[in-house]
Amino acid sequence: MTRNEFDLIRDYFARQPVSRRDVALGIGDDCAITQVPEGCQLAITTDTMVEGTHFLATASASDIAHKALASNLSDLAAMGAMPAWCSLALTLPEPDEAWVAGFCQGFSALAEYFQVQLIGGDTTRGPKSITMTLHGHVPHGQALTRDGAKPGDWLYVTGTLGDSQAGLNYVLGKPVTDEARAATLINRHYRAQPRVAAGQALRGIASAAIDISDGLVADIQHILKASGVGASIDVTQLPLSEALLADVDSRETAQKLALTSGEEYELCFTVPEMYRGTLETTLKHTGVTAACIGQINGSQSLQLMADGNPLDWTLSGWDHFKELDSDRS
Amino acid sequence: MTRNEFDLIRDYFARQPVSRRDVALGIGDDCAITQVPEGCQLAITTDTMVEGTHFLATASASDIAHKALASNLSDLAAMGAMPAWCSLALTLPEPDEAWVAGFCQGFSALAEYFQVQLIGGDTTRGPKSITMTLHGHVPHGQALTRDGAKPGDWLYVTGTLGDSQAGLNYVLGKPVTDEARAATLINRHYRAQPRVAAGQALRGIASAAIDISDGLVADIQHILKASGVGASIDVTQLPLSEALLADVDSRETAQKLALTSGEEYELCFTVPEMYRGTLETTLKHTGVTAACIGQINGSQSLQLMADGNPLDWTLSGWDHFKELDSDRS
Repeated sequence: MTRNEFDLIRDYFARQPVSRRDVALGIGDDCAITQVPEGCQLAITTDTMVEGTHFLATASASDIAHKALASNLSDLAAMGAMPAWCSLALTLPEPDEAWVAGFCQGFSALAEYFQVQLIGGDTTRGPKSITMTLHGHVPHGQALTRDGAKPGDWLYVTGTLGDSQAGLNYVLGKPVTDEARAATLINRHYRAQPRVAAGQALRGIASAAIDISDGLVADIQHILKASGVGASIDVTQLPLSEALLADVDSRETAQKLALTSGEEYELCFTVPEMYRGTLETTLKHTGVTAACIGQINGSQSLQLMADGNPLDWTLSGWDHFKELDSDRS
Repeated sequence: MTRNEFDLIRDYFARQPVSRRDVALGIGDDCAITQVPEGCQLAITTDTMVEGTHFLATASASDIAHKALASNLSDLAAMGAMPAWCSLALTLPEPDEAWVAGFCQGFSALAEYFQVQLIGGDTTRGPKSITMTLHGHVPHGQALTRDGAKPGDWLYVTGTLGDSQAGLNYVLGKPVTDEARAATLINRHYRAQPRVAAGQALRGIASAAIDISDGLVADIQHILKASGVGASIDVTQLPLSEALLADVDSRETAQKLALTSGEEYELCFTVPEMYRGTLETTLKHTGVTAACIGQINGSQSLQLMADGNPLDWTLSGWDHFKELDSDRS
């Protein structure tokens, strides 16, 4: 990579569509200089995606960019924060201009939608990986955390669950029988819509929140541990898409997928009884559905139930490094 | 890497020594939540270091951590910002506990010195690389930028130049004749002290500033381009260490190294005539030396001079990807 080719890549990123008034100095100096709005705190999150671990070499650059930004946006959503600025560290084995163009297209489309300005980063040579640090604003003291769930609070998830894993199964080579359905599920895997508006709407309503990146049973345990509580989930209440139900042999298989599928980028949150009415009204405005799937209790464990009866399903949380092996198989 | 080993690595980073009052929520939720002091803007910088590109596989984990954090601190210094928070994305091929312990030791020592709190990040499996995003505070409107140099301003650099490349030469296999000298220069390469206090002292004095990461002639051209000016450098005024002079065959060789050596993490800055006295007094308080090496002029180019005569040395800016080839040779 010569100096000029390297500059070329930086030029691509300089041509990004969002220009925010709270960015005093964007790309091009030793640091970006920004301004946090008065009365707001800053929410900061970082995610790395490595080729072979988090995406296949065959994945499109545009899909990778979307997924990388969406996973960070989802972390902001889980705090109730409003997205603002992104730092991007891009490592590439060679200056593949077509790849960079595709990446920028995927990044810019999502960044523009959420008004995220790229404020800087680094472009280096090495095995392909993407690290983004995303910054958002949240009114002082109103961030949604994991540690506020209380016994009696109701447990909710947004959207539907299980589709991302079902899509990944096709990406990993599952034979396609229904083109449209496979496309829907693959799209759900690569092109999740982070619940940014819903997260902000939950401020003052949810007692705890997390986004589903490792799988519902794995992620919910972070809430339970941080809050010092337990929970029961009624698997019959898990929100399942038509595509998922058509894709599997039984409802039970779909429910198990819903419990363990990672990279869903839906929100899981708890709501005190007194705010359930407000929740319904508020979410209606965001156009996001939320299903009540269970309740927090004073135990220290998670119990799966169906029609009032305990289930003894053994499930492993979606494991990042198990995923690695599948990707490489 | 099992889930437990992965958690183990996160535990290392949770045990970091700095706890700042402006961090409302550190490691352990979907985002960190922080507070920028009133009247301050936020300075944000990101650097990636990849094994084989930016450091050799044989480099110690502690040295790598120091270098990664120092390079980011140097970017904050060049803006006159006060360091605050760090997000760390660490990618490792396997959960090497000894390596992580060494990395944390190197990171924590420098982070504690500059009161930088690790607020989060990501740990992933893949080819070894480190991406840090560092955040600092700077009083509103007082950040040092690259675009303020005016004809007549004097050109300065802190410390001495050339040592980092001379140290890298030993790292890359140059035979050692003098153990102590080689150790000094290698230390200068891996363990640069970012000019954080000097950078803050330059607020209101320097008209433009940049840190020397690619090499003086390469970096100064960013100031010239951004400011729309030219400059002359008197190579006889370049600050050279005793170790460097003893390490090379001639003063000219040392001067050429000083002009091109990258990863020096010294500051290069411009000062209007009227502030030269203030500069001297101010820097005395920080214990940092600064040498006046030239002057800004109205041309659009950089001219090297010696004793009043123009030089026709041809020098290439330190090239990141040329370095790659040396690393791999």
